Amino acid sequence: MKSVASLPNNLSEEKTDLSTLVKLVEDEMGLVEEWLRTNLIDDNPFVEDLLKQVFLAGGKRIRPLIVLLASRATAPRQEEFSRLHIILAVLTELIHTASLVHDDVIDKASVRRGQETINKRWNERLAVLMGDLLFAQASICLARIMNPTVVGIYGQVLGDLCAGEIKQMRQQFSTTVDWELYKIKSVGKTASLFAAGSHSGAILNGCPNNTIQSLKDYGLNLGLCFQIVDDLLDVTASEEQTGKPVGGDLRNGVITAPSMFILEGGGKNAARLKELIDSRAVLEDGGVQEALKIIRDGGGVDKTIELAGDYARKSKECLSVLPDSQYKSALASLSDYVMNRTC
Amino acid sequence: MKSVASLPNNLSEEKTDLSTLVKLVEDEMGLVEEWLRTNLIDDNPFVEDLLKQVFLAGGKRIRPLIVLLASRATAPRQEEFSRLHIILAVLTELIHTASLVHDDVIDKASVRRGQETINKRWNERLAVLMGDLLFAQASICLARIMNPTVVGIYGQVLGDLCAGEIKQMRQQFSTTVDWELYKIKSVGKTASLFAAGSHSGAILNGCPNNTIQSLKDYGLNLGLCFQIVDDLLDVTASEEQTGKPVGGDLRNGVITAPSMFILEGGGKNAARLKELIDSRAVLEDGGVQEALKIIRDGGGVDKTIELAGDYARKSKECLSVLPDSQYKSALASLSDYVMNRTC
Repeated sequence: MKSVASLPNNLSEEKTDLSTLVKLVEDEMGLVEEWLRTNLIDDNPFVEDLLKQVFLAGGKRIRPLIVLLASRATAPRQEEFSRLHIILAVLTELIHTASLVHDDVIDKASVRRGQETINKRWNERLAVLMGDLLFAQASICLARIMNPTVVGIYGQVLGDLCAGEIKQMRQQFSTTVDWELYKIKSVGKTASLFAAGSHSGAILNGCPNNTIQSLKDYGLNLGLCFQIVDDLLDVTASEEQTGKPVGGDLRNGVITAPSMFILEGGGKNAARLKELIDSRAVLEDGGVQEALKIIRDGGGVDKTIELAGDYARKSKECLSVLPDSQYKSALASLSDYVMNRTC
Repeated sequence: MKSVASLPNNLSEEKTDLSTLVKLVEDEMGLVEEWLRTNLIDDNPFVEDLLKQVFLAGGKRIRPLIVLLASRATAPRQEEFSRLHIILAVLTELIHTASLVHDDVIDKASVRRGQETINKRWNERLAVLMGDLLFAQASICLARIMNPTVVGIYGQVLGDLCAGEIKQMRQQFSTTVDWELYKIKSVGKTASLFAAGSHSGAILNGCPNNTIQSLKDYGLNLGLCFQIVDDLLDVTASEEQTGKPVGGDLRNGVITAPSMFILEGGGKNAARLKELIDSRAVLEDGGVQEALKIIRDGGGVDKTIELAGDYARKSKECLSVLPDSQYKSALASLSDYVMNRTC
């Protein structure tokens, strides 16, 4: 990725260590892992192996971390932290993982987190079912929370996820630059779940509305930053870093911020990138490499870093409503981490 | 299908007209249709068209009918019939429809209800997403019901649906006769949702436990009958009747009751059927036609009718716990309908 020298003000240039943030809610994160390890069992050993592959293959668990830090940051008394917050964290990770499994079917992806995907290793049919199984587990968790507002929020997230992907599919290989649509798709694909995770804990904690709204905005901005950095890493990071092939979005006809900045810039670069996309040359190695070079050299990367930085900064501003605490600081550090992550 | 002369006792030989049963809960069924017509809207007209195709392409709405009749049959006072029962009926149909859309991806089916499937007309990616969207809508409905027991029941149904399909996939082309496994798969694929629909209304009505349990058993037995008749129609009915190709299960390596009776019978028929399945000859027209002839002529159809009839009879027996009413009678007639249906 381009040097952090181009980071906007108000964002830490130091590398934030995720494990330091995890330490603050270490016990709770342990309970989340335990839930995932012990509840996803099936009387079919084959299915159980698959579930293990999906969950224990790594994954940074950023979404459960957001849930737990935000829940702690808004808990009226620390000892009152409840079982429901753990289920909320589990639920958030389950929805994320289920959507990854179906995304891999949709994108015909063969590698995820450096491992073969289910659709590649076995077949698409099994991947559809495994995703459904995880969504079903998420529905059961959601049910246990028994809070109508939270249930409504996560129901909306599920709808947003699908609507975002369908919009993306319908826009495949489109070189029309529409930033509003890009934002809507990014909310659907990513930020909607981040926002659900960041403010549902505050709802369970009975917080006032302005706290709840601010935490929702924190998650929404953080999620947008996360998605934009994801789109950036598709252009800048190596397969070793991300566990996914470089330029995978372009190959799938998914046109994101780094390309959009070039396309709206006009001139020779825009014309050539448009040609590579329109002609489907980006489906081949040669075409995708040329497109990536245009994006990197033409300023697409710098402008995307700036855009992501704006959302990271906004997310931190939303935290001002919270009383000072180590959890509040950790949420701010998480914005830095998401902005600076390289994998 | 074989003549009804072979029907077990206690089952009506007269053709039950579904529309007579629907008439009893006509207003409520109208509200279900209205919900499906007005709530499944999307800001993307393409998605909205797809949703319409999926829902307005027919479908007998048997599951909402079970929910409404069973809810009415157990309502303490008829005027107290609530909005929640309508949502329960909608939810049940949504889960059914979502699972059909994903089943068509899994089975690579090209025709459903006489229409091209989404995966055939567009692609598998869109079908995965459309199924997810419908499951998400179902989760939102489930959430609105706000009853922890009902939510748990439907959460279990979602898990059962996937587990049933995964078991079926793992047993593809297996000629080992295992009736227990066949029952478990049939519960997962079909009867679990029937049972959820048949007893959740009684839970919302605050009925005593034995009423709730009896209605659950009614749905479970009716669902098993329904699935067995489905497996039978795959062998006996024409594509015009079912809207699906004849012998589709065999072509997909799904070995069901009609084949299992032949396989366990031993002798020449069993050996030849096993050979046709083992050699994958059933993937071709010639092989599947020979297999169907063996099943029909070898008694597979008769024995399957008998098995389905047993479950239909059991389902009717479960109704004895209910006070007499037109709704109770309609539920009994529904068992006859499911047993005698030819499409």
